[in-house]
Amino acid sequence: MNDQKRIRDYNLKVGQLQTGSLNSITDVEGVTVGHVTLSNKGMQTGVTAIIPHQGNLFKEKLIASSHVINGFGKTMGTIQMEELGTIETPIVLTNTLNIGTAALALTEYMMAQNPEIGRTTGTINPVIGECNDMYLNDIRAQFVEKHHVLEALDSAASKFEEGAAGAGAGMLCYSLKGGIGTSSRKIELDHGTYTIGILVLANFGMLSDLTINGRAVGVELREALLRIPEEKDKGSVMVIVATDLPVSERQLNRIIKRTVTGLARTGSTISNGSGDIVIGFSTATKIPHEKPNHCLSIPTIHEEDIDLPFRAVGEATEEAVLNALVTARHTVGRDGNMRPALSDLLVKHDTQL
Amino acid sequence: MNDQKRIRDYNLKVGQLQTGSLNSITDVEGVTVGHVTLSNKGMQTGVTAIIPHQGNLFKEKLIASSHVINGFGKTMGTIQMEELGTIETPIVLTNTLNIGTAALALTEYMMAQNPEIGRTTGTINPVIGECNDMYLNDIRAQFVEKHHVLEALDSAASKFEEGAAGAGAGMLCYSLKGGIGTSSRKIELDHGTYTIGILVLANFGMLSDLTINGRAVGVELREALLRIPEEKDKGSVMVIVATDLPVSERQLNRIIKRTVTGLARTGSTISNGSGDIVIGFSTATKIPHEKPNHCLSIPTIHEEDIDLPFRAVGEATEEAVLNALVTARHTVGRDGNMRPALSDLLVKHDTQL
Amino acid sequence: MNDQKRIRDYNLKVGQLQTGSLNSITDVEGVTVGHVTLSNKGMQTGVTAIIPHQGNLFKEKLIASSHVINGFGKTMGTIQMEELGTIETPIVLTNTLNIGTAALALTEYMMAQNPEIGRTTGTINPVIGECNDMYLNDIRAQFVEKHHVLEALDSAASKFEEGAAGAGAGMLCYSLKGGIGTSSRKIELDHGTYTIGILVLANFGMLSDLTINGRAVGVELREALLRIPEEKDKGSVMVIVATDLPVSERQLNRIIKRTVTGLARTGSTISNGSGDIVIGFSTATKIPHEKPNHCLSIPTIHEEDIDLPFRAVGEATEEAVLNALVTARHTVGRDGNMRPALSDLLVKHDTQL
Amino acid sequence: MNDQKRIRDYNLKVGQLQTGSLNSITDVEGVTVGHVTLSNKGMQTGVTAIIPHQGNLFKEKLIASSHVINGFGKTMGTIQMEELGTIETPIVLTNTLNIGTAALALTEYMMAQNPEIGRTTGTINPVIGECNDMYLNDIRAQFVEKHHVLEALDSAASKFEEGAAGAGAGMLCYSLKGGIGTSSRKIELDHGTYTIGILVLANFGMLSDLTINGRAVGVELREALLRIPEEKDKGSVMVIVATDLPVSERQLNRIIKRTVTGLARTGSTISNGSGDIVIGFSTATKIPHEKPNHCLSIPTIHEEDIDLPFRAVGEATEEAVLNALVTARHTVGRDGNMRPALSDLLVKHDTQL
Repeated sequence: MNDQKRIRDYNLKVGQLQTGSLNSITDVEGVTVGHVTLSNKGMQTGVTAIIPHQGNLFKEKLIASSHVINGFGKTMGTIQMEELGTIETPIVLTNTLNIGTAALALTEYMMAQNPEIGRTTGTINPVIGECNDMYLNDIRAQFVEKHHVLEALDSAASKFEEGAAGAGAGMLCYSLKGGIGTSSRKIELDHGTYTIGILVLANFGMLSDLTINGRAVGVELREALLRIPEEKDKGSVMVIVATDLPVSERQLNRIIKRTVTGLARTGSTISNGSGDIVIGFSTATKIPHEKPNHCLSIPTIHEEDIDLPFRAVGEATEEAVLNALVTARHTVGRDGNMRPALSDLLVKHDTQL
Repeated sequence: MNDQKRIRDYNLKVGQLQTGSLNSITDVEGVTVGHVTLSNKGMQTGVTAIIPHQGNLFKEKLIASSHVINGFGKTMGTIQMEELGTIETPIVLTNTLNIGTAALALTEYMMAQNPEIGRTTGTINPVIGECNDMYLNDIRAQFVEKHHVLEALDSAASKFEEGAAGAGAGMLCYSLKGGIGTSSRKIELDHGTYTIGILVLANFGMLSDLTINGRAVGVELREALLRIPEEKDKGSVMVIVATDLPVSERQLNRIIKRTVTGLARTGSTISNGSGDIVIGFSTATKIPHEKPNHCLSIPTIHEEDIDLPFRAVGEATEEAVLNALVTARHTVGRDGNMRPALSDLLVKHDTQL
Repeated sequence: MNDQKRIRDYNLKVGQLQTGSLNSITDVEGVTVGHVTLSNKGMQTGVTAIIPHQGNLFKEKLIASSHVINGFGKTMGTIQMEELGTIETPIVLTNTLNIGTAALALTEYMMAQNPEIGRTTGTINPVIGECNDMYLNDIRAQFVEKHHVLEALDSAASKFEEGAAGAGAGMLCYSLKGGIGTSSRKIELDHGTYTIGILVLANFGMLSDLTINGRAVGVELREALLRIPEEKDKGSVMVIVATDLPVSERQLNRIIKRTVTGLARTGSTISNGSGDIVIGFSTATKIPHEKPNHCLSIPTIHEEDIDLPFRAVGEATEEAVLNALVTARHTVGRDGNMRPALSDLLVKHDTQL
Repeated sequence: MNDQKRIRDYNLKVGQLQTGSLNSITDVEGVTVGHVTLSNKGMQTGVTAIIPHQGNLFKEKLIASSHVINGFGKTMGTIQMEELGTIETPIVLTNTLNIGTAALALTEYMMAQNPEIGRTTGTINPVIGECNDMYLNDIRAQFVEKHHVLEALDSAASKFEEGAAGAGAGMLCYSLKGGIGTSSRKIELDHGTYTIGILVLANFGMLSDLTINGRAVGVELREALLRIPEEKDKGSVMVIVATDLPVSERQLNRIIKRTVTGLARTGSTISNGSGDIVIGFSTATKIPHEKPNHCLSIPTIHEEDIDLPFRAVGEATEEAVLNALVTARHTVGRDGNMRPALSDLLVKHDTQL
């Protein structure tokens, strides 16, 4: 998307459905993404912010849902999201030990936009996701500061870097360098054409399990395997699902649960040490913070329309993980710990995808 | 409602909100209830059917939700209700060992109305609730037959008996005779007046815990207590919540969860051996079985409107349990096992409520 | 297992771990499986019973758990299983409209073994799973009778048929004939060698999605595809997980959730119309029905031991689905509806797996 | 407990079971509680820390569970607690907009004790609860700093203040001054005597609903009512449950769910704007962080032993809320906002409890 070589640039097509124009989560109208990348020797971490729409999210909330594929994670904000079915802040991704920083920064950001918070109306529910980047990053140093989070929020745009960028700076995936990946799918229904976009923060898996479009590429890279210590998978994956489909929070939840099919097709066994958490939102309806004196009217698809979104979300998740892998670059971090780039390995081992 | 002496006939007012005209679940437009009571010596059981609307429920489904307060129960149909957010059959209540019978009968009833089931469209999801009436009823005899279920469905009306009627024939409550009770509340919102109605199949509690409007009536009936063996609470309660409030399935779920406040105020500790299960539906929106070529539009209240429904559902649940208790009559059943009626005890012990 | 040609007989190895000696759910000591198959023109249905241990299950319950991958299904018995963490009856699988019959039969079976049920102790919680076989079977006829269920229970053994047998008689999978499949994996931990066994009732998927060990076999069978109407996937899958691993119900739940990785690797998108439901039990600990006067002591693995079971359950589920497909035979049923056998197609289209 | 006048000092006995010696959560061996109170004009907030045992919690985790009664709250750490069934840090309570601060401080506290975190082992899962104290406290100022959290942790002891102390400094309850309350119950089982202790951060309810031991005290304080603006209930309650009962995480979850019966008996309708969240732990078993080479053995009660714990947790929760109310003192905070003390009102209106 950002002039990086992505999985489709290897002449590889994932799934059956068409992508959006950028093949990115930002194909969903109004969605933007911003990074701050902190990369310098033992500091390999950062922040990625996803902004669900360009208005005032606190005053115009979106229908949202979360799903825990595996709960060995510290994601914040899902209790309220499940109870009320809405999201009222951007989503911020960072490393595990900086979630408190991200929560404070996002709270300040929302308070600045909404002076009535904590005065004439209630508080806010910051949504923060995380993965553990301790292998490449000196995570105990908690490098992320509040201003980094605010910068990521302020720099959000429709084009953004994949791979070792933002919160992805220090992440591993299938024992290789991982990080941020994105993809999208278009859905044609009787009543319109819609988009589902995925952003992953990919930090999971062992090389021997890596599967690309059904092919056991991880096993093929046997020589590489010998030299790369395949530590126990202690990773995680955050999956953000954006769509403009008109859906209830229940329908959205059903859709985002299908991300697991995409993860599984890349080889994931959803290992123990992984916080595999999905957060989804729909831009189709804005739920006002202030109560109107009439009922709301929520447009939703009929349940029989949901199979295409199910397929779309699986395909886009699979492709987003592969994009994270192929765009990530070789990284040396804390204590000289290193992770190779898949793109380099493919060249070195003369492997055509 | 049916010329029985109910709790308000004791000059007792439960809560703050107004009741509907019948103070019954059938105050919700379109809801009807039918019983078949099987009462003869060791046979003390029956069937209660709740019909959510008078059209074809399979073709016009209602938004629905279930909630498990305590899951030591065998209720059928909630998995699909949670996944799809709808109900497509009446609700049938009976004794624990006859749920299979009820499922078969309800399946036949739905197939008769809908010849396309299992042919050109899928199957159906029967919703069956149960409590264990083994103390008064020879439950192993499985007295309920399919025709009883069909009779209960066919006899549904807006007026129905409370206490030892229908599925309530053999139930106990607070060591006394329990069974069916109902109540309703009206809710005034900016955009209209709505109704919440409750029906309980009450089969839980120990006399020493019985509380009526804050008063420890169970303890006061100490003399009675001495003579009534307070066995371990092995009971259950089914709570059916009907409303015409425009709500999403998520909002409905939040509302029906508050039934527990009403149960607790009558003295329930939600004991282990109890299947305490709530099923709710809203008549405000009909979800078509067949997919239209446009989006649905679901009217819903704003979340800030939900406190009154929360209060209403607690009050009506509390009153429905008390109605079940005061309308139930002294019953002798299996092996001479007996449960006294609260109304008789109040007279005998000269207790004014 | 039963002299049928299974997926490994095609020289295909699924995953990394070793199978048990029968490569079957019955490799878990004490587990047996019985079928009654009703196959005659428009009658293509049946019953499959899984018996978790050979003692009195009501008196010696097993730790159990269920997981809903997709809840468009009518499985009975999971509410109590989740609340109490135990299973106390065999598991019976049949067609959707006969679950009431199965519940009644299983209730009778348990009452016969335990005369105290409904007398001096409580009732029982029958566990029934189902899939919809209406394409090949005249499901409205509800062919299964109580005696069929009892025969399936009585005929349970460690060897059993796969494919179009028992509850699998009328099931479809990936637009081909589906049904019953099984597989197992061995798990070597520091403290012992354990087994996980899977049985699937496979009734889901569209041929174009079928993937065998990463290969898009469905797409390759393009010619076949043209002749087989790929109707909308209205299928389902029941997955039964047996293990002798010492686990808590929470750990067991984590393990059985990973079955979805195996389903996804065969091509499943977990479509809307599908009741995809998993039920698991561990034979490692027997929980007594009667309360002892001391604490129980539950042996469990440490959480760090759980990655191998995660891998095992995914592999065995994938292989069980493939076994269901390759063992199923060409079937003509209701109104001449027909589903081809994968094994026939492979020969006809000269496709080597 | 701390020479404050508590509800039993009004000659009021809540429930049937005996209290522990301090009638406090700290009656559970090893549990301590520490406060930092920030009270000065518009600053009315603080921190309360609950320490589950006195060893290294990260290395010796406890079985834990959480339950969301109403999810309009921002509690952190429950996703992992539900997945793994353990707690590995103290619990910190504070105001809603300072949860990020609390998370950072608790992370530092744990890293200081465990230098291997983020180096040779994974990260940690801080558990933070919150209520909104914006009526009395200038919550936007985010007064709580990391050192306050560390001070609360360091000052934990078995005796601690109730009412307007620690995180309770600015909380309201039933339109009066609320805050911290505690209580405990003893449970006699065949195999030993156990304790359940409750700590609440009470910040919910409207005066007209206040019920004390069944008596509508809120309504009786009608005169007071006229002068106290009963704003919409925007409150919350955090309930911490400690026990030394040997229980599985499933059993613990069942127990902590019953806290709602105690809340309901004080008059709660569980209003919309409330984050009503329960966190429980058992000190009976220590789960080692490092995997041993043998199975764990988890002692648990038999399910038939669970009714007494159910009763105990309801009673202690009810009493803890009442203790929070009667110990809280009249407080004037932000912009002159004021909440009266129940103890003062009782004297002024000559009301005997």
